[in-house]
Amino acid sequence: MERVDHLAHERNKSEFDVDAMKIVWAGSPHAFELSDRISKLVASDPGFRKDNRTMLSRKDLFKNTLRKAAYAWKTIVDLHLSEEEAAKLRFYVDEPAYTDLHWGMFVPAIKGQGTDEQQQKWLPLAYKMQIIGCYAQTELGHGSNVQGLETTATFDPQTDEFIIHSPTLTSSKWWPGGLGKVATHAIAYARLIVGGRDYGVNGFIVQLRSLEDHSPLPGITVGDIGMKFGNGAYNTMDNGVLQFDHVRIPRDQMLMRVSQVTREGKYKQSDVPRQLVYGTMVYVRQTIVADASCALSRAVCIATRYSAVRRQFGSQNGGPETQVIDYKTQQSRLFPLLASAYAFRFIGEWLKWLYTDVTQRLQANDFSTLPEAHACTAGLKSLTTTATADGIEECRKLCGGHGYLCSSGLPELFAVYVPACTYEGDNTVLLLQVARFLMKTVSQLGVKKPVGTIGYMTRVDHLMQCRCGVQRAEDWLNPSALLEAFEARAARMSVACAQNLSNFDNPEEGFAELSADLVEAAVAHCQLIIVSKFIEKLQQEIPGKGVKQQLEVLCNIYTLFLLHKHQGDFLSTGCITPKHASLANDQLRSLYSQVRPNAIALVDAFNYTDHFLGSILGCYDGNVYPKLYEAAWEDPLNDSVVPDGYHQYIRPLLKQQIRTARL
Amino acid sequence: MERVDHLAHERNKSEFDVDAMKIVWAGSPHAFELSDRISKLVASDPGFRKDNRTMLSRKDLFKNTLRKAAYAWKTIVDLHLSEEEAAKLRFYVDEPAYTDLHWGMFVPAIKGQGTDEQQQKWLPLAYKMQIIGCYAQTELGHGSNVQGLETTATFDPQTDEFIIHSPTLTSSKWWPGGLGKVATHAIAYARLIVGGRDYGVNGFIVQLRSLEDHSPLPGITVGDIGMKFGNGAYNTMDNGVLQFDHVRIPRDQMLMRVSQVTREGKYKQSDVPRQLVYGTMVYVRQTIVADASCALSRAVCIATRYSAVRRQFGSQNGGPETQVIDYKTQQSRLFPLLASAYAFRFIGEWLKWLYTDVTQRLQANDFSTLPEAHACTAGLKSLTTTATADGIEECRKLCGGHGYLCSSGLPELFAVYVPACTYEGDNTVLLLQVARFLMKTVSQLGVKKPVGTIGYMTRVDHLMQCRCGVQRAEDWLNPSALLEAFEARAARMSVACAQNLSNFDNPEEGFAELSADLVEAAVAHCQLIIVSKFIEKLQQEIPGKGVKQQLEVLCNIYTLFLLHKHQGDFLSTGCITPKHASLANDQLRSLYSQVRPNAIALVDAFNYTDHFLGSILGCYDGNVYPKLYEAAWEDPLNDSVVPDGYHQYIRPLLKQQIRTARL
Repeated sequence: MERVDHLAHERNKSEFDVDAMKIVWAGSPHAFELSDRISKLVASDPGFRKDNRTMLSRKDLFKNTLRKAAYAWKTIVDLHLSEEEAAKLRFYVDEPAYTDLHWGMFVPAIKGQGTDEQQQKWLPLAYKMQIIGCYAQTELGHGSNVQGLETTATFDPQTDEFIIHSPTLTSSKWWPGGLGKVATHAIAYARLIVGGRDYGVNGFIVQLRSLEDHSPLPGITVGDIGMKFGNGAYNTMDNGVLQFDHVRIPRDQMLMRVSQVTREGKYKQSDVPRQLVYGTMVYVRQTIVADASCALSRAVCIATRYSAVRRQFGSQNGGPETQVIDYKTQQSRLFPLLASAYAFRFIGEWLKWLYTDVTQRLQANDFSTLPEAHACTAGLKSLTTTATADGIEECRKLCGGHGYLCSSGLPELFAVYVPACTYEGDNTVLLLQVARFLMKTVSQLGVKKPVGTIGYMTRVDHLMQCRCGVQRAEDWLNPSALLEAFEARAARMSVACAQNLSNFDNPEEGFAELSADLVEAAVAHCQLIIVSKFIEKLQQEIPGKGVKQQLEVLCNIYTLFLLHKHQGDFLSTGCITPKHASLANDQLRSLYSQVRPNAIALVDAFNYTDHFLGSILGCYDGNVYPKLYEAAWEDPLNDSVVPDGYHQYIRPLLKQQIRTARL
Repeated sequence: MERVDHLAHERNKSEFDVDAMKIVWAGSPHAFELSDRISKLVASDPGFRKDNRTMLSRKDLFKNTLRKAAYAWKTIVDLHLSEEEAAKLRFYVDEPAYTDLHWGMFVPAIKGQGTDEQQQKWLPLAYKMQIIGCYAQTELGHGSNVQGLETTATFDPQTDEFIIHSPTLTSSKWWPGGLGKVATHAIAYARLIVGGRDYGVNGFIVQLRSLEDHSPLPGITVGDIGMKFGNGAYNTMDNGVLQFDHVRIPRDQMLMRVSQVTREGKYKQSDVPRQLVYGTMVYVRQTIVADASCALSRAVCIATRYSAVRRQFGSQNGGPETQVIDYKTQQSRLFPLLASAYAFRFIGEWLKWLYTDVTQRLQANDFSTLPEAHACTAGLKSLTTTATADGIEECRKLCGGHGYLCSSGLPELFAVYVPACTYEGDNTVLLLQVARFLMKTVSQLGVKKPVGTIGYMTRVDHLMQCRCGVQRAEDWLNPSALLEAFEARAARMSVACAQNLSNFDNPEEGFAELSADLVEAAVAHCQLIIVSKFIEKLQQEIPGKGVKQQLEVLCNIYTLFLLHKHQGDFLSTGCITPKHASLANDQLRSLYSQVRPNAIALVDAFNYTDHFLGSILGCYDGNVYPKLYEAAWEDPLNDSVVPDGYHQYIRPLLKQQIRTARL
C-alpha cells in the first residue's frame, strides 16, 4: 500500500508545537520517553499482534491471550525490564489477562494486608510467577456490599486451620479475573468465624490448583463464568466462578496485618490503623481515572482522524464533499470529548499528587484529610468513567456506519471499557457517598473548616448570593467567572439538598427519598473539581510554542460545554441568567472554530501507535478506505466464495425443495 | 430446576388488569392473539434456539443462521402461514438474516419502483424465494448522501444494455445485508448515464450469483465486510462488499416506474409523482419506531425483573437486603425508561395511522401534508432510536456487573440495536431536516397555516408570552399545563433560532453555524409530538381495571422526566420558573412510588416469552442465580478443567522455564 500521509494538510495547519504537547500529555520527558519506547517495542513485535482478536472463537482467543501473557513475561525477563517498564509493556500489549490481577490485585493485597512474615513467604513466589494469584471477593449474589459476603472461614482450634466454605449458591465467588482457568492461588474474602462468633470479612490466601498438573485441589470447584460483552474485549479474561467445600488452610494464611487469630483462637486487632485501606483505595481510583483519560483519548483520536478523512454532502460543482469535521454538529459533539480527554488526563495527574499527600499524612498518623480525599476520588472515579464510556460510544456514532465495524476498533474499546463504571464501586453508589460527605460538610459549616476540594464551602455565604458578572461572550473566558459559576452551582445544590433533607423526621429516609437530587449535587461538586484543577494547571508555566494557548481553548471548551449541558442546574439555582447561558453558548461556538485547525495535532499529541489504537478509521496516515477494503477479506466467512451451508440451507430454497430438506 | 415463581409476591401487588394491558400494548385483541400464538410457537421449537449464539465463531454462527432462515421458511410453508403470520414468525425468530432484506427491502423496492411488467416478472420469483435479493445502495465512501454515489450504469444503445461499473475503490458497494454470501440478485443503485449525460441515481436489478452453483457471475467481486459490534448480534448477517467490473444487464432491468430509458436511448420521466417515495419513507420509519419500542421494552423488562430479584445493602438485623428496585436512584433511572417504552409504543401506533393517511392523500394527489409528515417521521425516528440505544445501555448498567454477561441478553440487544441510530438516515442529519422544516414554518407564519404536529405554531403569539400556572406539585398532573409548557418551549426555541439565523447575511452559513442549536430545537419539537400523542391516547376510552390509571402515571412520568432532564430549555426560554421545576421534580418522585408496586406487572404486559427476551436476568420466574450458575458451565472454556494452552503457556512460567519456552 502506498505510504502517503493523507492527513498532512491537517497537520500543516496546526498552530502549536506538537512535540512539546506530547510531553505535557505524558506528564514529563521521562514519562514520554518511556511510553514512546515501550509502545513502539510492542507495536513492532509481531508476537503482540491483535488485529485478528475480534474474529477468534472463545477458546482460540483465550489460548492466544495465554500465549501473549507468557510472551510478554519472556520479553520482560529477556530484556531485563524494570518494574516500571514491565508495567508499561503490559499496558501497551493492551489485552486483559490474568496477569492484570496477579500484579494489580494479588501482589498489592499481600503487600497491604500481609504481615512481614507473610510478605517474605509469598511475595518472592509471586514476583517470579512461581505462583499465579487472583483476587476473589465478589460473589454471585453480592457485589458492591462487601459486608454482605457469605463465604465463611471458620477457625478450627483442633487443627490450627481455617475451613473455607461456600454455604449457599449465591456465596459462589463470581467475577474474579484469572480465577476461571489460570490462577493457582487466590486471596479469598470470607467471614471470619472464631468460636462461633462472626468477626466480619477478612482475606485469606487459598491455593486453588495443583502446581504440578493444574488440576483443582480437593473441595475446589472452579470454572469460567462465560462470555461477556463484545468481540475480543474482556473475553480474553477468565473471569471465574469458585465454590469451596470445606477447604482447609493453615492459620497463617489469613492476611494478618490488621487483625489476627492466635493459636488459641483469640481474635485480636493490631495497632495498624484501619484507615490504611483508604490509601490503597485512593491509589486504585487514581489509576482508574488515568485509564479513563487513556480510553477516551483513544476513541477521540480515532473519531477525529476519521472525521477529517470522511467527506459527506456539500459538494459544490462536482468538487470534493465537505470533511465531516467541518460540520458544527460534528464539532459540538467531538470537541468537548477532546477537551474532556485532556481534562481527565490532568485530573489523573493531580490524583497522583493526592495519593502521595495522603500516604505521607497516613505515615504521620494524620487522618484529617481522609474523608475529603475519599469523597473526591470516589466522585472522580464515577464521573470520569461514566463520561468515558458514554464518550467512546459517542465517538463510535460520530464515525457513522463504519464505526460499527470491529475494524474501527471502537466496538471493542467500548466493550472492554464499560465495566469500569461498575467495578471498584458502582458509579451511582459512589456518587451517593460523595453526597453523604457533602451533606455532612454543610451540616458542620461553622464548626469544622472545609479543606481541599471542598474548601470553596468556606465562602458559602458569598456563593449563595453572588451574581454572575458576564456581560459579553468573551467574559466567559475569564477563569474566575467560570470558577465562581461552578462553585456557586455546586454550593447551592448542596445547600438546597440539605434544606430539603431537614424536612424529614428520619434523616436516612430523607436521604433515600432525595437520592436522585443528591446524586445531581454530587455531580456538580465533582465537575467543579475537574474544572478547577484544569484551571490551576494552566496557572503553571507550560513550555512549547502555542501549547498553553491550546490548552486554554480546551479548558474553556470543557467548562462551557458542561455549563451548557447542565444549564438547568445553573439557571434553576440562579447562578446565571438565560442571557448568560446564551452568551456562553456563543463563546463555545467560537472556541470550536479555534480548535478546528489544531484538532489532528491535538490527537497526535497522545502519541499512540497504530498498533495501540487498533483502528483502521484512526490510522495515523488517514489512508482509511483501502485498508478497510483489505481487512474485509480477512474475515473467516471469506475463506470460501460459496459459504459453508449453501448446499444444505440455501440451495433447497432456490430449488424449491424446502419441504423435503433436512434442516 | 424447581418451578417456583420468585416474582409472585411482586405480581400480587399489582393494581391493574394485566391481561387488559396486554391488549393495549399489542394494539388490538387480534394483534395480541397473533403475537402471543406465534411467539409461543417459536419459543417452543428447539429449531429456533438462540441461547448459544454469543459463543459461536463467525462461521458457525453464520451457518446456523442459514439453517434457521431455511427452517423458518419451511415452517411458514408447512403451516401455510399467512403473510402477516410469516412476518411475525421472522420477527420472533429474532436473528438478523438475509431474509430481512429480501422481504423488507428487495420486494418492496420492486413493488414501489418497478413497472407492472417488472413486477409480474420478478415478484413471483421473489415470493417463492427462487431468487434471493438484497438492496445495494450505500458505498464504501458514501452513506447518507445518496446523491454522492459513484457506481455508474451506462446505457449502451448498441446492445440495449446497461453497463454497471464501480469506477473507484470508494464506489464499492459496502454494507448491504444479505449481499456478502447469500443474495442471488441485488437492487443496485447507480448513476444513470445516457448519451454521456448523468441523470442521477436510479435502481437496477442485477444478478450477482449463479442460480446453479452460487458462484459470483463474471465481473462481480463480492464478499463479507467482516465482524461487527458484539457477540452474535449482527454478525449473523452477511453485510457485503461488491465491485462491478463492466457488468452488462438488459435495459429492462432498470426499475422504470418513475423514469425510463427507451430503446433509442431517450431518458423520460413518467407521470407517476416522485413524491410517492415519501410514502415508503413514512412506512419504513414507522416500522423503525415500532422496533424501538420493542427493543427498549425488552431491555426494560429484563432490568425491571432483575431489579426486583437483586438485593444489595440495607439488611437489618441479618434479614434480607433491600431489593434494588426499591432504591430511588434505581427508580429514577429505570421508571422513565419504562414510561418511554410505552410512549414509543403509542407513537408507533399513531405513525401507522399517519402512514394510512399519507397514502390516501397521495392517491388523491394531495401532497399538502407531506413536508409535515416527512419532518415528523424523520424526527421521531431519530428521537426514539437514540433514546432506545441509550436506554438499553442504561438498563444494562442498572443490572450491575451481571448485566455485562452475555447471558443477561443486554450486550447483544445493545449491539444489535445501535445501528438503528445510523441507518435509514443518521439521527443528527435527520434532526437537521426537522430543523429546516421548523425554520421554514416560522418564516411562513401568517402566510401558510401550520398543520398536523406543527399546528401549535398557529398559537405562537400566545405561546411566546404564556406563563405556567402551576402552583402545587399536583398541578403538574394537569395535561394542559404539561402540554402548554412543552408547546411553549418548542415554539420559543424555534423562534429564537429563526431570529439568530436572521442575523446572518448568508442563510446557509447561518444554518451551518447554528446547527447545534437547531438540533436542540428539533428535539424539543419531537418530544412535544410524543408527549401530545400520549396525552391524546389517554383521552380515548381504555378498558380494563386500573389500566388507564397506570398509563396516566406513565405518561406523567415520561413528561415530567423530560421536563427535568431538559429543564435548561424550559428555564432559559422562561416557560417555567425554578419553583415550577422544583415542583415538577417533587411530583415525579411521588409518581415513582405509584409505579413501584405495578412495575413487574407493567413489564409482564409486554407478553414476551423467555425465548424472545433471551436473558437469564429477565426470566419470567425470577429464578436468576441457579440459571446463571448453570449457564456458566456451558462456555467452551469449561470443556476441560485444565485449559488448552496450559502446557505451552502457563506451566513454563510456574516452572521457571520461560527463557527456553517456545511461544
